[in-house]
Amino acid sequence: MIKEVESLMHKYIAGVDPFALKLYENISCGKRLRAKLILKIASDSKEAVKLAAVVEMIHAASLLHDDVIDEAVTRRGTPSINATHDSKTAVMLGDILYSKAFYELSYFSSFIVQKISDAVTKLSVGELLDVTYSNSLQLDEDKYFDMIYKKTAVLIEATASSAALLAGKNIHAYGVYGKNLGLAFQIIDDVLDITSDSQKLGKPALADFKEGKTTLPYIYLYKSLNESDKEILLKLYKKELDNDEKKWIKSKMQESGAILKSIELARKLGYEALEAIEEDKSLDLEKVIKEMIEREF
Amino acid sequence: MIKEVESLMHKYIAGVDPFALKLYENISCGKRLRAKLILKIASDSKEAVKLAAVVEMIHAASLLHDDVIDEAVTRRGTPSINATHDSKTAVMLGDILYSKAFYELSYFSSFIVQKISDAVTKLSVGELLDVTYSNSLQLDEDKYFDMIYKKTAVLIEATASSAALLAGKNIHAYGVYGKNLGLAFQIIDDVLDITSDSQKLGKPALADFKEGKTTLPYIYLYKSLNESDKEILLKLYKKELDNDEKKWIKSKMQESGAILKSIELARKLGYEALEAIEEDKSLDLEKVIKEMIEREF
Repeated sequence: MIKEVESLMHKYIAGVDPFALKLYENISCGKRLRAKLILKIASDSKEAVKLAAVVEMIHAASLLHDDVIDEAVTRRGTPSINATHDSKTAVMLGDILYSKAFYELSYFSSFIVQKISDAVTKLSVGELLDVTYSNSLQLDEDKYFDMIYKKTAVLIEATASSAALLAGKNIHAYGVYGKNLGLAFQIIDDVLDITSDSQKLGKPALADFKEGKTTLPYIYLYKSLNESDKEILLKLYKKELDNDEKKWIKSKMQESGAILKSIELARKLGYEALEAIEEDKSLDLEKVIKEMIEREF
Repeated sequence: MIKEVESLMHKYIAGVDPFALKLYENISCGKRLRAKLILKIASDSKEAVKLAAVVEMIHAASLLHDDVIDEAVTRRGTPSINATHDSKTAVMLGDILYSKAFYELSYFSSFIVQKISDAVTKLSVGELLDVTYSNSLQLDEDKYFDMIYKKTAVLIEATASSAALLAGKNIHAYGVYGKNLGLAFQIIDDVLDITSDSQKLGKPALADFKEGKTTLPYIYLYKSLNESDKEILLKLYKKELDNDEKKWIKSKMQESGAILKSIELARKLGYEALEAIEEDKSLDLEKVIKEMIEREF
């Protein structure tokens, strides 16, 4: 079924412009988490493949613009479009994917059109918040959760509830499932930036803090440190870290329990996600949550 | 009525994010050609103001991304967002305006949603073509017209036919009107780059050829030159021009009739635009065409 999604995306972009297609073929296709989710929730619906293609095009567009905004040179271990070509090209290809996705989206029912397009607006605001919060140390947990909700969870929430609508399932329950899955996904992503290595991640490790991003483990860590350690941590903010400094952060993260506390919160969100769709008892959707939380990259 | 459009746009963006609103307030608001067109075609429709706000948000988003792509530092005489802030911010604000516009668009009838979103896809492809064609001398008239249709005319075409639908007027006729208006508009823009001065334009004059853009007057000029003058012109392609070279281009453009021929084509398109909507005999829409062709900036 994922193959069908891939070939539909290919067909959509081929229909827009041959050069855009050539550029698109250079993008690493990623985990296709959102497409898999739709296909699992709405496996019997004819429209599921189409919705999956639309949502994956939106996600791909957002990553292209993300990489321009973050000036990232790699994405999933391969060079990003703004590295192989330039940021112009990444902006243009992103716009093409976004707008073609909206065009195809317009054939769905108004609930789905509004849900997904509202999610994209929030997603763009989430990116703006992420950048704004990177200007200085941001230790407010509420702001962190609002930002990751917009940046990551809202599109998964909209995706899951739209798929539920296609399948005649409980829209609200699947919305909660998607939202919690998205939040947990982002928290694990932020944990892996600290605990995993560059090779596994396909991008530099310990990059968030250097880029000014105070993610949940850093918020927890800061709160647990004594005054002199707080000062050390502050001095490392936005700094190119040497090996000793990297070790210091990694060991403080473990010692203080900041990593464990973050993972436990992700697990709790995952558990609540499953609770929301309990009446459906889907082993497949349980597996999605588990794989996502236990992943290493 | 334009005031109502402005305040609705303000309300939409305020509803999305306060920081985005602050950024938005720094953008020069431009001629609002598209909004005026909608209000003139569908003056009696309650939805006209809303459609105008949506289309102007899309247009503003496309200009923000345009300026990133063209690395333009001024827009309508004021510094562009990518100059006052950075290109990241321009990409993010553009994404917010695009997605909020799509969200509000989704409340319209499916004809309008599809017409406008298809236009945005073509608009993005038009920008890609514009950049691709700037890599080397592009002397093919058909390619030029296809590019300006996508870059400029298609959104005006979609706007005019959508407004006609709201007003219960002839959709096809107003589509032709909008398409021709858009093509003529872009041709005049390309002429003014050569004949007008930087102060009037609010951006550097004679910039297109330097940026690699072979616009219609250059295509006409090249074809009319003898071999030695062709060689001179080729040497000036993508070059920072000194005063003598600027004078040479300007005088050859006049001598060869390339400017006049371009203006005459724009007039012809304007005439055909009016012919298409003849049965409505709208003095207002005649004025739009005239002002657009006779403008100096």
